[in-house]
Amino acid sequence: MTRGQFITFEGGEGTGKSTQAARLVAALKARGIDVVHTREPGGSPGAEDIRNIALNGDAGRWSPLTETMLMFAARSDHLEKTIRPALAAGRWIVCDRFADSSRAYQGAGGGTPADFIEALDAAIVGHDQPDLTLIFDLPVEVGLERALARGAGETRFESKGLEFHRRLRDGFLSVSAQHPERCRLIDATGEPDVVTERVWRAVEPILP
Amino acid sequence: MTRGQFITFEGGEGTGKSTQAARLVAALKARGIDVVHTREPGGSPGAEDIRNIALNGDAGRWSPLTETMLMFAARSDHLEKTIRPALAAGRWIVCDRFADSSRAYQGAGGGTPADFIEALDAAIVGHDQPDLTLIFDLPVEVGLERALARGAGETRFESKGLEFHRRLRDGFLSVSAQHPERCRLIDATGEPDVVTERVWRAVEPILP
Repeated sequence: MTRGQFITFEGGEGTGKSTQAARLVAALKARGIDVVHTREPGGSPGAEDIRNIALNGDAGRWSPLTETMLMFAARSDHLEKTIRPALAAGRWIVCDRFADSSRAYQGAGGGTPADFIEALDAAIVGHDQPDLTLIFDLPVEVGLERALARGAGETRFESKGLEFHRRLRDGFLSVSAQHPERCRLIDATGEPDVVTERVWRAVEPILP
Repeated sequence: MTRGQFITFEGGEGTGKSTQAARLVAALKARGIDVVHTREPGGSPGAEDIRNIALNGDAGRWSPLTETMLMFAARSDHLEKTIRPALAAGRWIVCDRFADSSRAYQGAGGGTPADFIEALDAAIVGHDQPDLTLIFDLPVEVGLERALARGAGETRFESKGLEFHRRLRDGFLSVSAQHPERCRLIDATGEPDVVTERVWRAVEPILP
């Protein structure tokens, strides 16, 4: 049994990555690939329970440090219950947000020390790093406008202000620069169909 | 303002430490000391929400690694919202379970690597280590019998079997040996009034 490919979608608010993840899943299935479409925080029953307390409430409900712990607690359950069993069975994973979101949101955005986040990543994620990470990049103002227009229920991060979202974008760009072996920066401006084309070009090299 | 004293109560199931913690709080108050009586996991609104998902459900609901993350997430919130502000205001803390319970339950009992737990302790607890830790010690069979007779609602740990509880007791004894500067082993056998006497003798040296 060949291990499946592990693809993560990363980026700030309103970059369209959830829409694009759904499209990629459909395109991979159309090619006969068995894909699990999942997301973080969440993706397993226990991790969804943690998501529920981590994402809702006031913007200041959790400190960035506590938030980091909750995100990696959910990630630990998600890896154990969903991701590792699927990859071992040869299935592919398309995951909407993963550890790079902790590096960007709790690290670059929230000020949790980068070396602590890397220690958690080593203990929780370990060798199960993504094979391919697509980082959706968009000017901060454009992304926030899209996210607010969408009117989603989970608003803790969207309400954190422009400065936070600038640090967030810088955080993702820095992850992309530090992990060029697995990260591809996706220009998220323009029509969805154009972005879908960009995603497909990034995924083609790992297709069977 | 003199920083308050931070006292933690530790031990396995059915050792009577919660009863004894309440008695110590009353005795300290009778001496005019301003004490906050708190517990883990929990002790702040956010940490109580985490407790709720961490402690209930099947015994195998969370892996020891995920459980470790949840406990330190709750601990982080508890320290930020309850413990540090109280100590800084000169109040004392009596806390029913703290980081040594992670060393014993998730570490010695569950197999989470000790060095990972110490890394979390350094990042989350840091310099705010307890001034005095009372470790309640009891033969495993006696403690479990007492805990089951009590019929508490949160049964995830009580249902883990005798072998787990043996590792747990060894874990607490090992914590006590490794941190003699703050730990006092309390013989939890005998009548509650006798144990209360033992607790008081351990606390007397730090009284004002």
